[in-house]
Amino acid sequence: MKNIIELINQKKFLEAREELAKKNVVDIAALLSEIKDKELVVKIFRILPKDIAADVFSYMEHEQKLFIINSITDAEVANIINDLYIDDTVDFLEELPANMVKKILKNTDETTRAIINQFLNYPEHSAGSIMTIEYVDLKKEMTVEEALEHIRKTGVDKETINTCYVIDENRILEGIISIRKLILCDKNSIIKDIMKKDFIYVNTLDDQETVAKLFKKYDLISIPVTDNEKRLVGIITIDDIIDIIDQENTEDLQKMAAMAPSEEEYLKTSTLQLAKNRITWLLILMISATFTGNIIRKFEDVLQSVVILAAFIPMLMDTGGNAGSQSSTLIIRGLALGEIKSKDVLKVIKKELGVSLLTGIVLAFVNFIRLHFLEKTSLLISITVCISLFFTVVLAKVVGGILPIAAKKAKVDPAIMASPLITTIVDALALIIYFTTAKVLLKI
Amino acid sequence: MKNIIELINQKKFLEAREELAKKNVVDIAALLSEIKDKELVVKIFRILPKDIAADVFSYMEHEQKLFIINSITDAEVANIINDLYIDDTVDFLEELPANMVKKILKNTDETTRAIINQFLNYPEHSAGSIMTIEYVDLKKEMTVEEALEHIRKTGVDKETINTCYVIDENRILEGIISIRKLILCDKNSIIKDIMKKDFIYVNTLDDQETVAKLFKKYDLISIPVTDNEKRLVGIITIDDIIDIIDQENTEDLQKMAAMAPSEEEYLKTSTLQLAKNRITWLLILMISATFTGNIIRKFEDVLQSVVILAAFIPMLMDTGGNAGSQSSTLIIRGLALGEIKSKDVLKVIKKELGVSLLTGIVLAFVNFIRLHFLEKTSLLISITVCISLFFTVVLAKVVGGILPIAAKKAKVDPAIMASPLITTIVDALALIIYFTTAKVLLKI
Repeated sequence: MKNIIELINQKKFLEAREELAKKNVVDIAALLSEIKDKELVVKIFRILPKDIAADVFSYMEHEQKLFIINSITDAEVANIINDLYIDDTVDFLEELPANMVKKILKNTDETTRAIINQFLNYPEHSAGSIMTIEYVDLKKEMTVEEALEHIRKTGVDKETINTCYVIDENRILEGIISIRKLILCDKNSIIKDIMKKDFIYVNTLDDQETVAKLFKKYDLISIPVTDNEKRLVGIITIDDIIDIIDQENTEDLQKMAAMAPSEEEYLKTSTLQLAKNRITWLLILMISATFTGNIIRKFEDVLQSVVILAAFIPMLMDTGGNAGSQSSTLIIRGLALGEIKSKDVLKVIKKELGVSLLTGIVLAFVNFIRLHFLEKTSLLISITVCISLFFTVVLAKVVGGILPIAAKKAKVDPAIMASPLITTIVDALALIIYFTTAKVLLKI
Repeated sequence: MKNIIELINQKKFLEAREELAKKNVVDIAALLSEIKDKELVVKIFRILPKDIAADVFSYMEHEQKLFIINSITDAEVANIINDLYIDDTVDFLEELPANMVKKILKNTDETTRAIINQFLNYPEHSAGSIMTIEYVDLKKEMTVEEALEHIRKTGVDKETINTCYVIDENRILEGIISIRKLILCDKNSIIKDIMKKDFIYVNTLDDQETVAKLFKKYDLISIPVTDNEKRLVGIITIDDIIDIIDQENTEDLQKMAAMAPSEEEYLKTSTLQLAKNRITWLLILMISATFTGNIIRKFEDVLQSVVILAAFIPMLMDTGGNAGSQSSTLIIRGLALGEIKSKDVLKVIKKELGVSLLTGIVLAFVNFIRLHFLEKTSLLISITVCISLFFTVVLAKVVGGILPIAAKKAKVDPAIMASPLITTIVDALALIIYFTTAKVLLKI
């Protein structure tokens, strides 16, 4: 990039453009993002060969896009917007203040404007909001040769030509056909006879997560999107689906760590927004944890007579929490990937019981050796701690296994049944087991 | 499917085959997986039209694949294996016992056998282990017309023809060209002049995670894999990358919940294996938690004189743990997606300090109201708890922000710096802050 900047400073614009044209659009966007001087970014952007400018733009950071749109002429804005795929345009517009959106729409032709407006109205996270309209449509009466000729004429501006869509005069989707089939079939074949009539498609209002699941299940590269009358309105391509998979995974992780999910990158989120995302669950869990505290208060007499019992509370609470969140994490993930279904609840309980008996015995045994033989804790206290530990682990794992499935059945997102909530619940159970065992064994 | 089973029972095999041919291969595999009668599965499998049998096979469950291979004739085995894409064959063989692998390799021709053996030798999770060899290769001297003719002749057996690979006489990869370009360009153009010479490729030994990152960064559909001499040896397609993204996410989640990562589905993992995956970290964390217990022992005098202090331990520990794991989760995810880099450590500390001051004040304030005004706890104890709470939250968030980055710098997987470990560390800090504050304020 230094090289290119030098060329620009020497006003050797043509040479700079040639250098840029050799690079990948993603890399150009990445290089631009590292330049602090905004005017220089605009200068370089203007030098870009026209056919890749919109592509580079779609990969740039939002702040830089904004600055460029504000710095260039209306004609240039119109060029970029008309060259962008509709899904990239909509993504960009959705994050703009209203006056900017107006400025941009003013510079696009009437048809594009109507389409953009329609797209901006699809609900967030719906198939409609992530689809694009740059697809190839064919008629079923065409021969393969005519179809290929049609693709040659119209294909340049399409996001993908790998799958083509066969529609009737009312735009109703009747079949799909891959470019591979078109090339491999005899050129006189009629599309109707070779197209796939049994194909996967989604509705504009379907959730993007549902769409992503279909891509995974059927190993798709693109999927057609239709309205309620099965009229073709757009397609969704795999590159957008990968972003969605990452995004859904991030949101699940955030929920599992007791935060409000957010699509924003960490470093780009304001401190206030980060605090807002985190405070609600911290408050809820803090107040729930005071119930655990009340259990200790209830057993104050036990603690008063054997104050050393307090020393084992952290170990019990932590081990219970960890054992429980191991289980809940596996179940939440299994549910998200569709590997575990609600009807598997009994299998899960059986598995978790088995696992918890095994791990519980090992943990209790190791702990007993340490407490009684290494740290010379009295026999009765050692036994109390280890019995409590065993039952805590068993309960934690069973609760951790059941609650995510219960949440799913109750149509609540299983991801909230993760470590923090499970830990709070298990803590209370652990302390009740602990003090009750102590009361019985130590005869307090 | 009932319909098909009935047809089979009535020995109307041809009609059953027609019914099956209408269905998607993924759906046929899913339907087969629900049939308990193994013999019936083999029967249905044998009826499948030959051109989709291998495809259906690649989507079936491992147990059913095994049973089918054991039930059918050697010739049938050879047919399936020869029709499978090499990556699916290798995936299947990798999970087989050695004697089964021999049985299968015996039934393949020499070339395929040599290739399979080579594939089985690539390290797990390397690009070589997930690539396939069914790609279209072109010569740079070809015209577009010749290239298309070549694709027509050889394309049927290729996993994808969407991108073609241009190699020289030594199989060195010189360029790539999309089928789109071939169709849109003039048929007399020479490949050399229109191919892309600056393309993304990986080495057979590159890690699959690196490959997945390239797919995401450059919105790829497939990527060529070369050896150290840049000879083309295979390609990786996007459908396999999506599985890898899911798999890497699952492994990160498992590590974050203090488990040994495993690729096996939960319901298909034995209880013993599940217990093994979980016990090591449970033991490590249990023993670490006893250090926290030792802190309580050290302050036994404080606790002895004001035993009520014990009642606030769970709330302090839980809130600290939750606050810390919120931060560590965001940082671990940011590092995994490449949104946060090691050099951002100061930015992260600044952000976490800001967030923790905000959340800490709110939490301490709410807690003070509840303790002093609602539950009538004495002023000094309420103040002790709230001051400790505030500093615990601040420390937890800073520690949660720094440790994953420190791990990354020390070339350790940041995912292990998640909730469980952070919680254990924060617990100890929380108790030291708590008892020290109590000692000073309550003058014990």
